[in-house]
Amino acid sequence: MYSPLITQLIESFRVLPGVGPKSAQRMAYYLLEQNRSGGHTLAKVLEEALEKVTHCEQCRNLSEETICGICTSTSRNSEELCIVESPSDVVAIEQSGIFRGKYFVLMGHLSPIDGIGPEEIGLNELDTRLSQEGVVELIIATNPTVEGEATAHYIQQMVSERNIKVTRLAQGIPIGGELEYIDSGTLSQAFISRKEV
Amino acid sequence: MYSPLITQLIESFRVLPGVGPKSAQRMAYYLLEQNRSGGHTLAKVLEEALEKVTHCEQCRNLSEETICGICTSTSRNSEELCIVESPSDVVAIEQSGIFRGKYFVLMGHLSPIDGIGPEEIGLNELDTRLSQEGVVELIIATNPTVEGEATAHYIQQMVSERNIKVTRLAQGIPIGGELEYIDSGTLSQAFISRKEV
Repeated sequence: MYSPLITQLIESFRVLPGVGPKSAQRMAYYLLEQNRSGGHTLAKVLEEALEKVTHCEQCRNLSEETICGICTSTSRNSEELCIVESPSDVVAIEQSGIFRGKYFVLMGHLSPIDGIGPEEIGLNELDTRLSQEGVVELIIATNPTVEGEATAHYIQQMVSERNIKVTRLAQGIPIGGELEYIDSGTLSQAFISRKEV
Repeated sequence: MYSPLITQLIESFRVLPGVGPKSAQRMAYYLLEQNRSGGHTLAKVLEEALEKVTHCEQCRNLSEETICGICTSTSRNSEELCIVESPSDVVAIEQSGIFRGKYFVLMGHLSPIDGIGPEEIGLNELDTRLSQEGVVELIIATNPTVEGEATAHYIQQMVSERNIKVTRLAQGIPIGGELEYIDSGTLSQAFISRKEV
């Protein structure tokens, strides 16, 4: 049905998240039939990115520079440090535009069952960084999952002896959400943390 | 937000059909964070496919071989030739398993406004092939669109002087379809072509 090389190409596209057999076929044929230059660019840039992109030595975010753009930026507030699980979390927060401090990316969360302890998520580096830099507030923005909460709790304990304000993101009703569709856990949290207006 | 190389990688993924900014970001981060070997394979296979895959000299389908697997196959009936617009049409027909003849892939359809005439869709090659091979039936399976119909009509005229049976795929109600949701054109066609049982 497909030639061997086209079969291989379709299989290779299938490793991408959200790409099933039909989409993979469409991608392969699209590049081969209609956009060979786009395909060459993709292959070249992908190879280059895989070779050069590693982790920023300061915040552990993905970057091809030793120290990433956010860490070297002088217009950002070094007194606020936001801890997130993954690079996509940094993107989401940057897109909101609300935060002008710096980041620390755990690249995961604590998960003893998978052998992921404090060292694997860079808590040693975080500790060193907190000793050296004048961080005033540590915003723990791990995911509101069991693992994310456990990781947040661990970090909170770790820094408890330092004179640093530790905060977590507020939990409650998302903007634009409808009460009837919000899970009871979130709704309870919204009641507990209700604010006087 | 992204490092320059990651921005480039996300942009490169966006050329793929059905991939928006969010999916492209997810693909880039997935390969960089979780599956670098899959990424290397994709880059390598893509580059190789773009370099080697051209058209089968006989049926014009995409293939890295001079003559593709279907054309060289001895178990297929050379007396039946099915004309389709694109390689994905070959895949769809092969998946149905109903056809054991050979193909001719136009790689498009007649579209004078875009400068696509008979030569561009390989009708010269088709003519030569019909003169040399003992084709008994020509099944025209172009798309049921205005351009597909026009192309089918042109081919029909072209071969009208040869002693070849020309057929088109039946039009009617798709299996599993519901009458109330079928467009009136299709429904009219199904009435006109009704069969005695």
